[in-house]
Amino acid sequence: MTTTATAPETTSPAEVDAVVARAAAASAPWRASTVAERVRALGAVADRLDAHVDELVALAGAETHLAEARLRGELRRTTFQLRLFGEVLEEGSWLDARIDHADGDWPMGAPRPDLRRQLEPIGPVLVFAASNFPFAFSVAGGDSASALAAGNAVVVKAHPGHPDLSARTAALVREALSSVGAPDGLFDAVYGTDAGVQALRAPEIQAASFTGSIAGGRALFDIAASREQPIPFYGELGSVNPAFVTRTAADERAGEIAEGFLASVMGSAGQLCTKPGVLLVPSGSNLERLLASATLPTPTPLLNPAIADGFRASVAARADHSGVDILAGSTAGSQDPHPVLLTTTATALRDDPEALITEMFGPAALIASYQDEAELVSVAALLDGQLTATVIGSEGDAVAGDLVATLATKAGRVLWNQWPTGVSVTWAQQHGGPYPATTSVGTTSVGTAAITRFLRPVTYQNLPDALLPDALKDANPLGVPRRVDGRLVTVS
Amino acid sequence: MTTTATAPETTSPAEVDAVVARAAAASAPWRASTVAERVRALGAVADRLDAHVDELVALAGAETHLAEARLRGELRRTTFQLRLFGEVLEEGSWLDARIDHADGDWPMGAPRPDLRRQLEPIGPVLVFAASNFPFAFSVAGGDSASALAAGNAVVVKAHPGHPDLSARTAALVREALSSVGAPDGLFDAVYGTDAGVQALRAPEIQAASFTGSIAGGRALFDIAASREQPIPFYGELGSVNPAFVTRTAADERAGEIAEGFLASVMGSAGQLCTKPGVLLVPSGSNLERLLASATLPTPTPLLNPAIADGFRASVAARADHSGVDILAGSTAGSQDPHPVLLTTTATALRDDPEALITEMFGPAALIASYQDEAELVSVAALLDGQLTATVIGSEGDAVAGDLVATLATKAGRVLWNQWPTGVSVTWAQQHGGPYPATTSVGTTSVGTAAITRFLRPVTYQNLPDALLPDALKDANPLGVPRRVDGRLVTVS
Repeated sequence: MTTTATAPETTSPAEVDAVVARAAAASAPWRASTVAERVRALGAVADRLDAHVDELVALAGAETHLAEARLRGELRRTTFQLRLFGEVLEEGSWLDARIDHADGDWPMGAPRPDLRRQLEPIGPVLVFAASNFPFAFSVAGGDSASALAAGNAVVVKAHPGHPDLSARTAALVREALSSVGAPDGLFDAVYGTDAGVQALRAPEIQAASFTGSIAGGRALFDIAASREQPIPFYGELGSVNPAFVTRTAADERAGEIAEGFLASVMGSAGQLCTKPGVLLVPSGSNLERLLASATLPTPTPLLNPAIADGFRASVAARADHSGVDILAGSTAGSQDPHPVLLTTTATALRDDPEALITEMFGPAALIASYQDEAELVSVAALLDGQLTATVIGSEGDAVAGDLVATLATKAGRVLWNQWPTGVSVTWAQQHGGPYPATTSVGTTSVGTAAITRFLRPVTYQNLPDALLPDALKDANPLGVPRRVDGRLVTVS
Repeated sequence: MTTTATAPETTSPAEVDAVVARAAAASAPWRASTVAERVRALGAVADRLDAHVDELVALAGAETHLAEARLRGELRRTTFQLRLFGEVLEEGSWLDARIDHADGDWPMGAPRPDLRRQLEPIGPVLVFAASNFPFAFSVAGGDSASALAAGNAVVVKAHPGHPDLSARTAALVREALSSVGAPDGLFDAVYGTDAGVQALRAPEIQAASFTGSIAGGRALFDIAASREQPIPFYGELGSVNPAFVTRTAADERAGEIAEGFLASVMGSAGQLCTKPGVLLVPSGSNLERLLASATLPTPTPLLNPAIADGFRASVAARADHSGVDILAGSTAGSQDPHPVLLTTTATALRDDPEALITEMFGPAALIASYQDEAELVSVAALLDGQLTATVIGSEGDAVAGDLVATLATKAGRVLWNQWPTGVSVTWAQQHGGPYPATTSVGTTSVGTAAITRFLRPVTYQNLPDALLPDALKDANPLGVPRRVDGRLVTVS
């Protein structure tokens, strides 16, 4: 635990135990907190972060090399997200409240007892912070916001890429929670890989979330699954986010498409989970020529040296492939990696998808040219799980229906004539897809549905009204939407 | 694949591959099927099973030794369940449809695109059938019904305890599906442990469900988690289902409580996942004396010899414990195991919960006497995850609030003055709890919410109306409840 802006290098084993024990002790009072108390706490955290925007953005800029405007936007998104989960709590559907009254004539053949079900907090949550969103997917990001909103204590394993920002953010969160009387120990951070693994193995921890690499995420998933009590591990690992341009679209809007694609690939130096990493374009099209002659951004520092090394290695492996050439930019060595577009064919993608349809985390993408639009569907069909898949097309395109239907089996979000970066935090957002995009295919880490990851259902049978949770009492004192005897009942 | 009532001993590896490949091939057309087509298919399966009730009950009786009345009731529940999932599909909430219209003023700080989200089929599902419910948790049971309803192909790994019934049921399901034009290969069964493991490892399989022992379920969970692509494994493993009797209740209703408890323990020879295996009673109470003098049922055959052996071993281990005595019945050896009540103290439970609070699958329970009602809460606090926990009390009992609140953190269903066996299939039912009750704490295997296990979310961004799934089109042609711009909109 720290209340200064200087992060400890690593948290000692004894201190990890103490942090986890305090989180467990805070769980009972926080479970029992009212919606109003939780809304107030989330709002207090958001307010405190907003009040320190200049200090936090400066710390983040120094540690991540991300641009100030991007960081200010990300912090705004982060505090919006905290307050949005307050709205979610007040609306009440998150409880999924259901009431079946006793029914002596239930057609199953036996009388139905009085059954009432709602979602309740899962227990202390461990959040592994990401490197590339020092606010929105880090200490006070969406995982922490949704876990706290759900009624759980939170332990964050800070990302080593921005330790001082993490410590300062954690201190502000703790101050804010303390200011509204939240239980001591409800929120804390630990530092270091060993500390994260130790916390993940702690019996008190009941769920974990993660955003990062496939290798790191899979190692942690394996630990979570091999515990004596396995726990849900919500990992967002890797995604290529392929985009498919039909011939009509390429003919009609080559300039707009090239510009939009390059902005999506090169924004934040390509270090976004939803960066479109593979683009399928019609062979010989004007779009292909425009991309070949594109002026790419000047090199900028990546988030940290490990990411820069990983980027160079992934680009070099692709560029050395016999079916791949450099289309624009360069793979030349230098302090900061050069942005680059590589080129190949849809045939080569189909022949060697494992080598070619794979993430390059940084300012690079692979342009694959196709002869026939049917190739779009056949490439789509062999994809691994993706966070997103994009179609740039015209509504009359014969291939559109099949392509969208196929991509919906592969990706969590399917886009039409927009680019996948810039993930909006909304009620209908989905950020998660089949493995390896995520380890838990039925969940999202962005949007209001993210709260469900940190809840579990409990049914009460035949309880007197006075002993029922408020959302399940006959009078519906919280005014939440409920399913009553099978029928959805909203409250106006 | 078999269409006769004679099950193959085991399914060959080549045939397992073929069954899985046919299921994968059937997935695309079944995903694309309409709600009406799926409702008709589920109804056809239910009708065909109902039409063969005498034959099926006779087969089940011969293979499981369960009583005819119980089996008829179970088949009625099973066909009710198939039709209920048809109602679920028609009602439409299962899609969790959400529409966020584009919003240039979205307070996150960036314009919100048009986002539309629904749940879609997860892909081919592998169902491991249970021994103790040859209809309701077997070939055409709740897992198969919910997976088919969700739009998935199903491969059942039949339970070896009732192979002929499994083969005959599978044949009837296939005939029924075929009669309504469902895709070939949509449903099939495989036989043998190796066949089940092979299917679980098949890349085409996207989720698995299981009901059975902790050892068997954990082994399969570990395989599912260690695949190159890990998949959700919905295992219901083991549960003690403790019940807590307050002093007032024991004083006022000793006879009724003893009778209800014994019926719940001894029904189906104690071979139910929700059998109350531990009962806490006030020391020196009339209830304790009534249980000590209870006449237990005469021995009957258990489901199969392996279960009888396991039962004898688990009872012997408990009876040999220094803190345990025999209260009623006998552990004498014989062909069929004797029903038995063991006795201990709440203090002993707290001192050695691992040895004493553990499942004895068969006609046995452990009665633990307590001195002070505070002991009820302290025993509740050290429980592992449970399917159910029961309080037999009076509304004025001071301990009731704390006890219910503590049990809600340990069990999926908390009962008041009713017994946990006889799980009703309803909208608000929850059958699943923290590990080891289930491997997937947020899910249920009974009730309408079971369908969610076999679905995954997909969001469509900026799609033209014509390319959207029906539930997400502006006109709402399916008439499903939707969340529109954050607000729940039902259709009257």
